[in-house]
Amino acid sequence: LSSFIQTLQNRWSSVNSALCVGLDPDPSKLPLHLKGRSDAIFEFCKHIVDATADLACAFKPQIAYFAALGAEDQLQAIIDYIHRLYPHVPVVLDAKRGDIGATAQQYAREAFERFKADALTVNPYMGFDSIEPYLEYADKGIFVLCRTSNAGGTDLQGLTVPSDSDPRGQCLFEHVARLCAGPWNKNGQLGLVVGATFPSELSKVRQLVGDMPLLIPGIGAQGGDIVATVEHGQSSKGQGMLINSSRAILYASSGEDYQDKARQVALETRDAIRQVLVPKPAKAAT
Amino acid sequence: LSSFIQTLQNRWSSVNSALCVGLDPDPSKLPLHLKGRSDAIFEFCKHIVDATADLACAFKPQIAYFAALGAEDQLQAIIDYIHRLYPHVPVVLDAKRGDIGATAQQYAREAFERFKADALTVNPYMGFDSIEPYLEYADKGIFVLCRTSNAGGTDLQGLTVPSDSDPRGQCLFEHVARLCAGPWNKNGQLGLVVGATFPSELSKVRQLVGDMPLLIPGIGAQGGDIVATVEHGQSSKGQGMLINSSRAILYASSGEDYQDKARQVALETRDAIRQVLVPKPAKAAT
Repeated sequence: LSSFIQTLQNRWSSVNSALCVGLDPDPSKLPLHLKGRSDAIFEFCKHIVDATADLACAFKPQIAYFAALGAEDQLQAIIDYIHRLYPHVPVVLDAKRGDIGATAQQYAREAFERFKADALTVNPYMGFDSIEPYLEYADKGIFVLCRTSNAGGTDLQGLTVPSDSDPRGQCLFEHVARLCAGPWNKNGQLGLVVGATFPSELSKVRQLVGDMPLLIPGIGAQGGDIVATVEHGQSSKGQGMLINSSRAILYASSGEDYQDKARQVALETRDAIRQVLVPKPAKAAT
Repeated sequence: LSSFIQTLQNRWSSVNSALCVGLDPDPSKLPLHLKGRSDAIFEFCKHIVDATADLACAFKPQIAYFAALGAEDQLQAIIDYIHRLYPHVPVVLDAKRGDIGATAQQYAREAFERFKADALTVNPYMGFDSIEPYLEYADKGIFVLCRTSNAGGTDLQGLTVPSDSDPRGQCLFEHVARLCAGPWNKNGQLGLVVGATFPSELSKVRQLVGDMPLLIPGIGAQGGDIVATVEHGQSSKGQGMLINSSRAILYASSGEDYQDKARQVALETRDAIRQVLVPKPAKAAT
């Protein structure tokens, strides 16, 4: 097992939480008293991290929010902060990179050497050789887009492609799931991104990939149902999920109580997920 | 027509060149006398731009090479430099972004407001609503990945999906081409990325999309043949292509003569392309 997957499994065991807290700092939604500060998005993320770290199995900063502002330094600072204060909580950098080998090597450097992320999201459209350079970082996790949570996800991912086992074919996202559970997963470090907004498809993916970690966006603001998500997404061991919530936690309040409110929503979300997880570990009640 | 497409067409007419010069500054390959300078990749790109601007229909910086080094400031500087000194040569930022709407908005800001690129490459795997936010910048160009030049491109793009017009189906990349030539192209600002390494597939795409601009990587270091590429890729007007060359030009020499050698390779490449373009415009000989 890669050390990212090991860290994740340790984290799942120790906190019994599948909640992944997404860090998407939208400057227009920051609490008023932070607006205008040059380090506003770092400060905001730091407060969210401090308020939710004990409830989270992982943090997932979305690089686009930092890049739009030219605030890569603040992204680096928040990842450093998490590593320093909460070393048991892995950081998944959400960047959805996808390019040919020589360029993918540069993106891998960006994610793993510059930002020191523990895992990265990537796009499969360009095929295996566009994923392979990331696999050279064998201790890192790679989450490949499979079935995304947005409505347009169906445009390509829902197309019928040939299947070895079913003459009626399969959806493209199922083909991606099979590739990632099979030949593409050379070092056992792959996971998949599967949206919460299509529970039956989440269920299909889970059947195809065994206990592979699934990063599941789409609950909360995007409308995915927690109970259906956990019922369909959990592995046979009652885990295997990073259920992401960003906006519902980050912007639970726009007042000075945003840390308290963020914690409250994170706690409720963790517990709502936990109630559906089976089998419940002995320490689930702590 | 969007103003990017207009700029591009003006450029094609005025210089009769389909050569797009890719700016992929790999620090390990820079000329010795630049190594170690804090602005080495900006200086290198500036010298390449100066040496090739009159031969190019466009420049295409690859963001990964800058991001790996934390050198976004140098990317910004080189785009500013091109805009200032060579305002008729559009800049295509190669970033292959792909994410849900709210995040795509941030990537659009990054590309068009922060870096002031004239066009951007994007990934279609997440569907139309992941492309739509870029279309709000109606004067910009958007190149959607269709059939990429790498060997693994076939893994997904070559899968057979249903077709309205052919009971045998079509390849996924053909489906993407049809979407981009049809319902996705709301403001007439889309182009496609189609690799030079599969000329017969380039030909299929051209048939499907009319005169749409095609960004064509894969000649030179990647092995695509120029004659076959131009024969199969040009539009009915004898243009419609941005044929990208990066490494063959950038690293034509690792000595102090790299500017001269880069210009020489760019000139040869432009002329090799020009010889195959039909119909030859009256001013082709100048």
